[in-house]
Amino acid sequence: MTTDTKTLNPLAFCVRTLLRGGGQVMFQCNAWTGLLFLCGIFWGSYETGSPQVAWGALVGVAASTVAGFLFSNRGCAPTDGEQGLWGFNGILVGCAFPTFMANTWTMWLALVICAMTTTWVRQGFNNVMAPWKINSLTFPFVFMTWLFLWCAREMTGLAPAGMSAPTDEFHVVSAFDSSFGSLVVYWLKGIAQVFLIDSWVTGIFFLAALAVSSWVAAVWAAVGSAIALAVAIIFGVSGASLEEGLYGFSAVLTAIALGCTFYKPNIASAVWCVIGTIVTVFVQAGMNALMAPWGLATLTGPFCLTTWLFLLPRFKMDDRPLPDLSEWNKLND
Amino acid sequence: MTTDTKTLNPLAFCVRTLLRGGGQVMFQCNAWTGLLFLCGIFWGSYETGSPQVAWGALVGVAASTVAGFLFSNRGCAPTDGEQGLWGFNGILVGCAFPTFMANTWTMWLALVICAMTTTWVRQGFNNVMAPWKINSLTFPFVFMTWLFLWCAREMTGLAPAGMSAPTDEFHVVSAFDSSFGSLVVYWLKGIAQVFLIDSWVTGIFFLAALAVSSWVAAVWAAVGSAIALAVAIIFGVSGASLEEGLYGFSAVLTAIALGCTFYKPNIASAVWCVIGTIVTVFVQAGMNALMAPWGLATLTGPFCLTTWLFLLPRFKMDDRPLPDLSEWNKLND
Amino acid sequence: MTTDTKTLNPLAFCVRTLLRGGGQVMFQCNAWTGLLFLCGIFWGSYETGSPQVAWGALVGVAASTVAGFLFSNRGCAPTDGEQGLWGFNGILVGCAFPTFMANTWTMWLALVICAMTTTWVRQGFNNVMAPWKINSLTFPFVFMTWLFLWCAREMTGLAPAGMSAPTDEFHVVSAFDSSFGSLVVYWLKGIAQVFLIDSWVTGIFFLAALAVSSWVAAVWAAVGSAIALAVAIIFGVSGASLEEGLYGFSAVLTAIALGCTFYKPNIASAVWCVIGTIVTVFVQAGMNALMAPWGLATLTGPFCLTTWLFLLPRFKMDDRPLPDLSEWNKLND
Repeated sequence: MTTDTKTLNPLAFCVRTLLRGGGQVMFQCNAWTGLLFLCGIFWGSYETGSPQVAWGALVGVAASTVAGFLFSNRGCAPTDGEQGLWGFNGILVGCAFPTFMANTWTMWLALVICAMTTTWVRQGFNNVMAPWKINSLTFPFVFMTWLFLWCAREMTGLAPAGMSAPTDEFHVVSAFDSSFGSLVVYWLKGIAQVFLIDSWVTGIFFLAALAVSSWVAAVWAAVGSAIALAVAIIFGVSGASLEEGLYGFSAVLTAIALGCTFYKPNIASAVWCVIGTIVTVFVQAGMNALMAPWGLATLTGPFCLTTWLFLLPRFKMDDRPLPDLSEWNKLND
Repeated sequence: MTTDTKTLNPLAFCVRTLLRGGGQVMFQCNAWTGLLFLCGIFWGSYETGSPQVAWGALVGVAASTVAGFLFSNRGCAPTDGEQGLWGFNGILVGCAFPTFMANTWTMWLALVICAMTTTWVRQGFNNVMAPWKINSLTFPFVFMTWLFLWCAREMTGLAPAGMSAPTDEFHVVSAFDSSFGSLVVYWLKGIAQVFLIDSWVTGIFFLAALAVSSWVAAVWAAVGSAIALAVAIIFGVSGASLEEGLYGFSAVLTAIALGCTFYKPNIASAVWCVIGTIVTVFVQAGMNALMAPWGLATLTGPFCLTTWLFLLPRFKMDDRPLPDLSEWNKLND
Repeated sequence: MTTDTKTLNPLAFCVRTLLRGGGQVMFQCNAWTGLLFLCGIFWGSYETGSPQVAWGALVGVAASTVAGFLFSNRGCAPTDGEQGLWGFNGILVGCAFPTFMANTWTMWLALVICAMTTTWVRQGFNNVMAPWKINSLTFPFVFMTWLFLWCAREMTGLAPAGMSAPTDEFHVVSAFDSSFGSLVVYWLKGIAQVFLIDSWVTGIFFLAALAVSSWVAAVWAAVGSAIALAVAIIFGVSGASLEEGLYGFSAVLTAIALGCTFYKPNIASAVWCVIGTIVTVFVQAGMNALMAPWGLATLTGPFCLTTWLFLLPRFKMDDRPLPDLSEWNKLND
């Protein structure tokens, strides 16, 4: 991204900002990555008959980015906005709301409110975490969306549609179709589910999107989904969840975060990243059970939690003094 | 409050300290406010046939204030005590225990223990939050009372009485009486429920109590309850909760906190306060669902959470450098 | 422990490190204490027909200690390892897994993974808590084991066996055998349950183990279990839990922590310790209800939470400037 920001016309600047917001979901400050992510989202949401998810993504990334600019002279740093850091939580809110709630005008109003708050909440959470040099990751999205999904149990204006039934009965049926072709599909869906899309084609779009920005990130995404699939099979998770890629998405994000974002890629950090990716599968299963009494999705909570757990010990994995978030955008530019 | 503390006789000092403890529930370091709050509590609790709530309030504020003085030479700052900051959590514990648990001697013993701990826990929580210049608000009350309400599920000595049944089934019946007179009642009850009182007359007492100390605070309390009522109706919350004012009390506190306590009143902070008040309604609904499996009340948890979320970004809303809690008592004196 | 580490042969060094890991569960950096703890664990687990618990303890302490040495040149301080601080979370993981999950190879694989992570997670949690001079205590064990016990609801490879059924129905049957002999048994079991052992003989082993290292610690353990028993009886907890010592173990740990580990033993700290021990019983009951929807044990969570609550106010109980964790190992040497 060598284009000088000052020479961009306003429209191009806006488009680039929004597209980068998509790219930052997987730590890529790259508008082309964001564009390919959106293509994958549109493909997948139309393929699965839920186009409102794709339009939600657009509304969400716009609302959360606008929320940042509204407060840009009161402490919301515009440099964050330019790099897409106001958009990545909002685009995920935009994918999640129409996935789990009925397509009503009150849902869209809540979507806009929730997406906007993520930008402010991100700043607050980052302030909280600053002393330990960690970052809120996608947790503003997770936290605010959980609140609104809980609201869907208490408000007729936010009707559940696509949410699991609340339960405290746990019966695991681990049977699944284990043909090679099916395994490849689950592996690709694991990547697609980062944006809550249940389509293997979208997984290919996403791998291509990552490769445009960083080959290493694409490889770690692929490896992360594969490791998660293997661990999930060995420990016998729900077959239905496995087939929809629901054990992959958090592991994909952990793998990109630990493998090539917060540490320089090398042998030591690769080992650490693999351990972290394996642990993510247990955190995913554990949080699935945790949220069952309300029928809520974990969203990318397992990724956030595991990545924090593996950054907080501050183990030295490379020649840099310590994992330091402020550098991770520079690495991608 | 220009009276010099040194010239007060001990009895007057004690009375003023306890009354200020009541006033601080809504951020007013003012004994007259506290007195009118207590009048409203006594009126409402006798009106609804539960006088033990009013007496609980007196026991609670006394126990938590005494707890502070016991440790005043070990690190519990007496200046906090004088300003009523040892009493506001205790008075809320005292209202909550007889509201949700049966009137037994073990309940009263637990009430005293819980009220006392809130003073120490407040100091601990404030230490935790000090780096971000935020305050534990009423969370010591919320946190410790939740623990004891959970105990009411596990101890025969703390019998539930007035607690909801635990459930993981969610059916929202949003019908409610929408005549203008009824809406005014719900609006006033929203203010009264800050102290867990289900009486519109008490709401008038509370507005008067605020006006004695700060007209601006009274206006924000009124506006906060009105906004909450409107948002709750638009999104279709439970009609029964609406009619009891259960969507109002946290919004009232958020409005006073953001509108005139932690920021100076002006256009920017007013907009921020209105957004925060709207978000409080969603946090309230979300936390209602969160606590449903145990049948626990959210207490003022939604107010605490939302206020923190809106203070932590540290947006600059006025000419003061940053929201700084240490100033909020001075503002009220 | 005056033996110079440098003169120990490698095998003796390893054995001492592992045994100290056991001892540190109750804050004793003493290999003889650890040896007697292990004797008690072996006795109790064979007596109750679950020898896998004792072998799990050995595997757990070894795995978590090895995990520290693997990263000893990347930021895991070897001085922690020597003092047994890498082992105490792992030994508890090793006791908990075979207690709550079926004896399968996947359970043992998960036990090793979980035990190893506790060492890294402890370093992370300690980093988080460092600004307030508190310590993660046994919370790395609690937190990671909760995650894996939740996994047991979602993975056929981690089958529940010994876990309670998930429920949101709360009926307390407080009847229990109150003969003097029985009360002594419950009191001793309260101490034994620190390592999840349901045997009064083990309780005697543990008291002896503490006395070898510190008479004061042994007295506080005994007093803590007795206070917990009294408070639990007064407030009418579940008789079955009472009879298994399940209200004692957290109180025992709180008593040792506040009575003679983080404060110097004196009148003021003794009073504070007694209050903390009483509060632990309510936290125990409350967390029992909190975890009921998943049928999970609280583990030593109530001890961690209560001890933090009583350290965070930073009340001055002795002539030392403030409770400072870095000194507690020195106190025991």
